[in-house]
Amino acid sequence: MIKRSISLNCDMGESFGSWKMGNDSAVMPHIDMANIACGFHASDPKIMSDTIKLAIAHNVQVGAHPSYPDLQGFGRRSIPLSVEEITSMLIYQIGAIKGLCESHNTELSYVKPHGALYNDMQKDMTIFEAVVDAVSSFNLPLMTLAVTDNQKLLDIADRYDVPLLFEAFSDRHYLANGQLAPRSLPNAVLGSEEEILNQVQQIVQYGKVRTIDGFSIALDADTICVHGDNPQSIRVIEKIRALINGEGSSG
Amino acid sequence: MIKRSISLNCDMGESFGSWKMGNDSAVMPHIDMANIACGFHASDPKIMSDTIKLAIAHNVQVGAHPSYPDLQGFGRRSIPLSVEEITSMLIYQIGAIKGLCESHNTELSYVKPHGALYNDMQKDMTIFEAVVDAVSSFNLPLMTLAVTDNQKLLDIADRYDVPLLFEAFSDRHYLANGQLAPRSLPNAVLGSEEEILNQVQQIVQYGKVRTIDGFSIALDADTICVHGDNPQSIRVIEKIRALINGEGSSG
Amino acid sequence: MIKRSISLNCDMGESFGSWKMGNDSAVMPHIDMANIACGFHASDPKIMSDTIKLAIAHNVQVGAHPSYPDLQGFGRRSIPLSVEEITSMLIYQIGAIKGLCESHNTELSYVKPHGALYNDMQKDMTIFEAVVDAVSSFNLPLMTLAVTDNQKLLDIADRYDVPLLFEAFSDRHYLANGQLAPRSLPNAVLGSEEEILNQVQQIVQYGKVRTIDGFSIALDADTICVHGDNPQSIRVIEKIRALINGEGSSG
Amino acid sequence: MIKRSISLNCDMGESFGSWKMGNDSAVMPHIDMANIACGFHASDPKIMSDTIKLAIAHNVQVGAHPSYPDLQGFGRRSIPLSVEEITSMLIYQIGAIKGLCESHNTELSYVKPHGALYNDMQKDMTIFEAVVDAVSSFNLPLMTLAVTDNQKLLDIADRYDVPLLFEAFSDRHYLANGQLAPRSLPNAVLGSEEEILNQVQQIVQYGKVRTIDGFSIALDADTICVHGDNPQSIRVIEKIRALINGEGSSG
Repeated sequence: MIKRSISLNCDMGESFGSWKMGNDSAVMPHIDMANIACGFHASDPKIMSDTIKLAIAHNVQVGAHPSYPDLQGFGRRSIPLSVEEITSMLIYQIGAIKGLCESHNTELSYVKPHGALYNDMQKDMTIFEAVVDAVSSFNLPLMTLAVTDNQKLLDIADRYDVPLLFEAFSDRHYLANGQLAPRSLPNAVLGSEEEILNQVQQIVQYGKVRTIDGFSIALDADTICVHGDNPQSIRVIEKIRALINGEGSSG
Repeated sequence: MIKRSISLNCDMGESFGSWKMGNDSAVMPHIDMANIACGFHASDPKIMSDTIKLAIAHNVQVGAHPSYPDLQGFGRRSIPLSVEEITSMLIYQIGAIKGLCESHNTELSYVKPHGALYNDMQKDMTIFEAVVDAVSSFNLPLMTLAVTDNQKLLDIADRYDVPLLFEAFSDRHYLANGQLAPRSLPNAVLGSEEEILNQVQQIVQYGKVRTIDGFSIALDADTICVHGDNPQSIRVIEKIRALINGEGSSG
Repeated sequence: MIKRSISLNCDMGESFGSWKMGNDSAVMPHIDMANIACGFHASDPKIMSDTIKLAIAHNVQVGAHPSYPDLQGFGRRSIPLSVEEITSMLIYQIGAIKGLCESHNTELSYVKPHGALYNDMQKDMTIFEAVVDAVSSFNLPLMTLAVTDNQKLLDIADRYDVPLLFEAFSDRHYLANGQLAPRSLPNAVLGSEEEILNQVQQIVQYGKVRTIDGFSIALDADTICVHGDNPQSIRVIEKIRALINGEGSSG
Repeated sequence: MIKRSISLNCDMGESFGSWKMGNDSAVMPHIDMANIACGFHASDPKIMSDTIKLAIAHNVQVGAHPSYPDLQGFGRRSIPLSVEEITSMLIYQIGAIKGLCESHNTELSYVKPHGALYNDMQKDMTIFEAVVDAVSSFNLPLMTLAVTDNQKLLDIADRYDVPLLFEAFSDRHYLANGQLAPRSLPNAVLGSEEEILNQVQQIVQYGKVRTIDGFSIALDADTICVHGDNPQSIRVIEKIRALINGEGSSG
């Protein structure tokens, strides 16, 4: 049994103007990759700049977390855009955060689309290709959902020389095809700390997750997405961190 | 008498969504530098991308034309922001257009702030320094108004290693200190084609402009700003181009 | 043969900030009802106020022309919103323009949703009911597309006591079910002045339109939508006006 | 000694989209007047609608709390606008919330401008008149700061037949002229619960406040503004409520 090297990523910089969201300073010490909002669904230039400084202070990689233009809907609304509109709005957002990274003498490390755009690119290969096209001009990897059959995604990404980073979710149930169980299902989200830690253990040690129907499927993940919305979730992140670091995983 | 090498710059990409402004395709063939709006007072990612392609097709340098966040007021309202807010919002906009330039395999060449921000940075050295700070992290020159005494500006820019490009206006009257006559004055804007061409001739051949009071003052300009809002103004641009190229300026 | 009393309506107030769209002052003298944008896809409070004044000067009824929140996409993008979000955003927009009307001592006369929202409410009865619900609290009629079978719409509107105004289009081809031929079809839009005037004549005199397949279908319209985007279209509006007024309709 | 009848007002509905601010449901039971944001500095149509319902449930008057257009700056930035822009943007916002009130069968009761606009109208009588003009078309009272010499304000308001409601602040120190001590001063904000309750007692029983220099000045207030940002402040509101109700003020 070989333990995989798996990183933790978390959405960050989701405040906007005077409105606070999340607890970035409590979460940042425990993660490896910060997906920082780029001003289209959350964040603004000052918040982005401050969040990048916080990531640097904790030696955390900065990733762009671009979105459809939708502050009011927090990027969760699927907005119909042309391929050219998607590509140019992504280059705009990625360029903006890259500029802020470089002003702090750090580099931008990857791109992970947010919300409805993240979901849409999994389902619609025209959108996925528009995203890959945008990311390719920065020579960065693209983070996407680890699914059972990811060959279609890899084929497109390969054509643009864009490496893919596959991510699994610590707190979401899976369908048989490796897609996330939709939030409309009653037990889409894992309810207890124990379940979450079990799921992480499965991913890290065996490259597997248990589906909502009780089966076990293979899932090859490079990184695990965690959420730090409240004090409890931050405690869970600390335990996931310890588990991944091999602390206390005596079994 | 030595003719100076002086370029022509023009504001470009000022449409927004479905709204058109300016006639970029008619103006672009005649200018050297395109100041492209960055989405805060005009333009959007798709329009920026299209305008960059147009500039490339005509071998025109691309400059960032960032602004206060003010679509409704077209960046003409002076919005009170902290130094950190100014610097980060400028890095955001410059990074965004730089990303779009690089996606089209061209480079961003300079930065010229727009509207109220352009005016404010001439008057308030705290704002000027915030702008210079932002520009410095891209190793780009900053375009600013050519005035009689620009030592204060040069001192600040030198501290950040930011070269300044000084611009003169072809169609605006000047005050004795080399500042533009405010638009509230009756003859702030030059009325006739002849006056405009005379002013350009003075700038190019003698490094001088005539003030609103009839005096002649020295003005050392690297570039002249032209406007292409209507068919007449485009005809004037063509004549300025010819004059600068030395065609027909025999008289 | 009885000539129906049919009004002309036109979208108005579609400028935004410094950007102009349409030629409201040329169109207003020829129409009966001005559908004025409410700031979500076009217009701003100052432009709305000025457009209302223009309507009053020409004795034209003011209608609210509310939209999804989408300035960049001009309200042409279908944005997924909850029923409560649709109803409250419509009441917000209708209330805003009603306030502006009353500040000029005129009244708001009807509501016509714009763009993607207009299309969506024809297809999705949940959205249609959300719109009707919003309109009902103002005791105003709702303008909607005249189709062959409008019983479903009438049933919902009746439950909320909302009168419907049915509109036909002067310059669009129709499908057999009375829906507009989608713009993706080659001849969705009528190409010549003659075709447009013919269509208006059919609607006004016989309550019929000819479909894209050459059939004639009944269409009971209260109002005809015209467009005033360019000098030609304004000339066409003048002829439609004359035709409806019975001038020169000697046949 | 006569106890004045004084109401409590509080800013409400300051969330935006997914971002929460304030604790409206904890504060609403203790106040008389809810100043509800109108979407320009905070709130959106759905949040406004929900906040109006909450006010109705607690028998609290609804006031419009309009602002400069400035979500990112929370309406705290002074944005230079023309008189016509100010008047029309206020009518727009007031009309919007009035529409939402009427859709819930309640009425809008007054207008209190927010943030930078509130401050600007105290200082610049042109702005004050633009505000009064907007409010006058709704036949509503305008809430403004109670100052020692309010004759200038009353003169303008009288010309438009707009009643003024004067408000005092429970937690701010005053200058000798009855203006609020600017937040830049070290003790601009009252630090302890005891100080706050003392100030309220002075206002309610004697129509006086103590200035930052220790003097006592007359201040004729109709309403007191309270803030409910955190659990402590909500406890203070409860005590102010009890004090105004005459409970336990026997000492």
